[in-house]
Amino acid sequence: MTIAYASLETHFAQQNALSGALSMLHWDAAVMMPESSAPVRGEHLAALSQAIHENINDPRVGDWLDAAESDAASLDAWQQANLHEMRRKWQHATSVDVKLVREQALATSESEAFWRGARRNNDFKSFAPYLKRVVALVREEAAAKASALNLLPYDALMDGYDSGTRMAEVDALFARLNAELPVLREKAMAFQAENLVVKPIAGHYPQENQHKASEIFMRALGFTGRLDISVHPFCGGVPGDVRITTRYNEADFVVAMQGVLHETGHALYEQNLPAKWRSQPVGDARGMSVHESQSLFVEMQLCRSREFLRYAAPILAESFGQTDDDLSPENLYRLGIRVKPDFIRVNADEVTYPSHVILRYELEKDLISGKLEVEDLPEAWNAKMQEKLGITPPSDALGVLQDIHWPGGSFGYFPTYTLGAMIAAQWAQALKAQLPAWGEQVEKGDFSAIVGWLKTNVHEKASSASRQELLKQATGEPLNADIYLKHLHDRYLSA
Amino acid sequence: MTIAYASLETHFAQQNALSGALSMLHWDAAVMMPESSAPVRGEHLAALSQAIHENINDPRVGDWLDAAESDAASLDAWQQANLHEMRRKWQHATSVDVKLVREQALATSESEAFWRGARRNNDFKSFAPYLKRVVALVREEAAAKASALNLLPYDALMDGYDSGTRMAEVDALFARLNAELPVLREKAMAFQAENLVVKPIAGHYPQENQHKASEIFMRALGFTGRLDISVHPFCGGVPGDVRITTRYNEADFVVAMQGVLHETGHALYEQNLPAKWRSQPVGDARGMSVHESQSLFVEMQLCRSREFLRYAAPILAESFGQTDDDLSPENLYRLGIRVKPDFIRVNADEVTYPSHVILRYELEKDLISGKLEVEDLPEAWNAKMQEKLGITPPSDALGVLQDIHWPGGSFGYFPTYTLGAMIAAQWAQALKAQLPAWGEQVEKGDFSAIVGWLKTNVHEKASSASRQELLKQATGEPLNADIYLKHLHDRYLSA
Repeated sequence: MTIAYASLETHFAQQNALSGALSMLHWDAAVMMPESSAPVRGEHLAALSQAIHENINDPRVGDWLDAAESDAASLDAWQQANLHEMRRKWQHATSVDVKLVREQALATSESEAFWRGARRNNDFKSFAPYLKRVVALVREEAAAKASALNLLPYDALMDGYDSGTRMAEVDALFARLNAELPVLREKAMAFQAENLVVKPIAGHYPQENQHKASEIFMRALGFTGRLDISVHPFCGGVPGDVRITTRYNEADFVVAMQGVLHETGHALYEQNLPAKWRSQPVGDARGMSVHESQSLFVEMQLCRSREFLRYAAPILAESFGQTDDDLSPENLYRLGIRVKPDFIRVNADEVTYPSHVILRYELEKDLISGKLEVEDLPEAWNAKMQEKLGITPPSDALGVLQDIHWPGGSFGYFPTYTLGAMIAAQWAQALKAQLPAWGEQVEKGDFSAIVGWLKTNVHEKASSASRQELLKQATGEPLNADIYLKHLHDRYLSA
Repeated sequence: MTIAYASLETHFAQQNALSGALSMLHWDAAVMMPESSAPVRGEHLAALSQAIHENINDPRVGDWLDAAESDAASLDAWQQANLHEMRRKWQHATSVDVKLVREQALATSESEAFWRGARRNNDFKSFAPYLKRVVALVREEAAAKASALNLLPYDALMDGYDSGTRMAEVDALFARLNAELPVLREKAMAFQAENLVVKPIAGHYPQENQHKASEIFMRALGFTGRLDISVHPFCGGVPGDVRITTRYNEADFVVAMQGVLHETGHALYEQNLPAKWRSQPVGDARGMSVHESQSLFVEMQLCRSREFLRYAAPILAESFGQTDDDLSPENLYRLGIRVKPDFIRVNADEVTYPSHVILRYELEKDLISGKLEVEDLPEAWNAKMQEKLGITPPSDALGVLQDIHWPGGSFGYFPTYTLGAMIAAQWAQALKAQLPAWGEQVEKGDFSAIVGWLKTNVHEKASSASRQELLKQATGEPLNADIYLKHLHDRYLSA
């Protein structure tokens, strides 16, 4: 091992620990902090971001990278992968100059703040100039990263969230879904209109009891960290101190339960990353699409199955005592698979969700390339909504204004949701083939073999392999849209 | 304003924000963090400490200080005071080299860990080598700071906790107490044996009800931040997000109540520091003795008064419902003033507490100067305990092993407890003279004028004046032991 490589490990450990501190403060801000403390917290976050920025921009880092790469043969496979991830992180961080980073921080913070009011007042027009500024700066960022990373501009943005994800692959996968999903949706709705009798949830489910049941499920799945409450559920903290949140609606326990299961999927990934590499870039989760594959595997593949609901139903019935609702496994299953197009992405079901994502993917590619301008967004949004989901939003509040991603400057993130759903289906297919007893185990609440499979094939590999390699090693093939479509056919076109 | 001074303000704002982040993570570690996350939190704290250290050791800081001081006439009074505090902080931080800081961190962390077991097993002998190492390193630190700050070694240590506090002053004040307190204690105990009939607390006080009552009191006093639970109660967070903690004993509500009132005193100080100067050294609290004067003013001067207990008694009675205890104001008053020597400092009453502190002050001066060695500590401790409090600990666990301060490397801190108690009495005397209606207001639960007096005379002045100047401005005289002794005479030698 060269001195240069050793210096990089020390340097990136400091980078990692400062980022970890930042993550804990974000958790506190969302879960514990009094609202009136936002300004002083802003100062802490800015100071930490500056320290992180100064650390990665230390002029010695580039020299160390060159020196370590010239002697990479002296490193083992994980060290080599680590060096590769260091270079990638460094390229992303140093390709955009400080002035642009500051302008972006300011523009997105203003735009986010203005967006909240604009969504409430259904006022795209007054919001447009703020978004225009954000898009202009993201275009600059994309151009700078494209040149540093030798990628197309939108690919460079996606790469920031999801290493190695490129339009060349995503376009082809999404084209399959674009063609098949509208047909599947119509068939599923027709089938459900004939066959799906559901007794709706209509009781009172005290928060405390929901919390208790949620804890039973997440502990059974193997998550050992905290569960708290926040306005927007998330998985936060750091490997070594992973924390998830949810919110409770006392009229409907299903939302919180599905949310906790989703975040537990994220949490298990973070929790099971290799402790040995925790301080290094190669020890990070592989990227947002693989991360989402973990949450959606747990939420959609595992916990919406009849097997899981046979295990869960008695726990729910006991948690809520006697209720008039039908908390039978079969009714819970049917509650989870109802298909109906909705204007709002976060309310979408499993069949229609990808169309929401593809709509945004197509629009943001055009926004970044300059084919589309901000003022033309509402019209383009509504046309695509009609084309993909057969509905037209009655207002921009229910259309283009619904998500925080664009006001917040996140472009290139949306595709990871649907890539994650597809990857989750592929893990599930392979896992079921390799663990034929999975169904019986799930019914008994024994998730050790299943989570063990994820641990071995995904969690413990961290960033030592690409997303494409992880899939190949565990499932024998690259990401395959057929597997996802088969999963949807099986679940939605038969009883 | 010079460019050098402006650069210093920017630089110290970063220093302050990083320290604030550190403070929030300490709060989380004590209140929220799962125990198993201690190792990863250790990484975050170490990384932040390193970033803070690098920031203050930036070679430009010394040059800026020189340049700004040479043109100090262009600064206003607060800026000049700020510059003075910057120099002092910089001297403390840069006088000790990194190697010593690292050795101290390692030695105190080992020594603290070993001390827990040694106290449990009453085993001073095995612990002595760890403490010897800590003392050797503190002697080095004291010598380095003495030379940089041009102070005596022990004064240099005290100055790190309490700017401007010197043995010359403390020796004289403590000599008065040393002479008077044993007499006062004997008289008070004799008086109480004749006159003090107390009905002890013996009910069950659910944690939830104690929490509710505590919140009523702290809100009435004006504290607006969080109240949580931790093993060791403390006031944490940062100005702008002050948070206090307590712990509850369901068999005795008095401990938690007194604890919350004490921490509320600290919290009001932090909360009321001038927002305008929050990011700068001059905006910090004045030092540990003034800080303790705020907690002890609220706990001892204000809330152990009959007037406060007339306000508090009905709130307690309502919080706990019907109980068999005597929750009358007079019984609560008597519960709070019982005098009895105890081996353990944190259990000590108001009359005997200073003797505990003076004992430690005398011993640690001798440890630092080299007059006393670690192996001779238990004998010296027990002799002084007999001399000052008339009791001899039956074991080192109840003697020299009781406090975490020395295992943790804190030498020069103890005197601030008793200086704080004396300063609190002096605030109280001045305040009562200037606000003749204070007693009626307290009985009504109206603390606005009293806390307003503290805000004007102490909180809002932050570090713009020395402790000595604060006292002179608000009370017309320097710290005066007579005022404290008069307070004790009045409370403990009459009914």
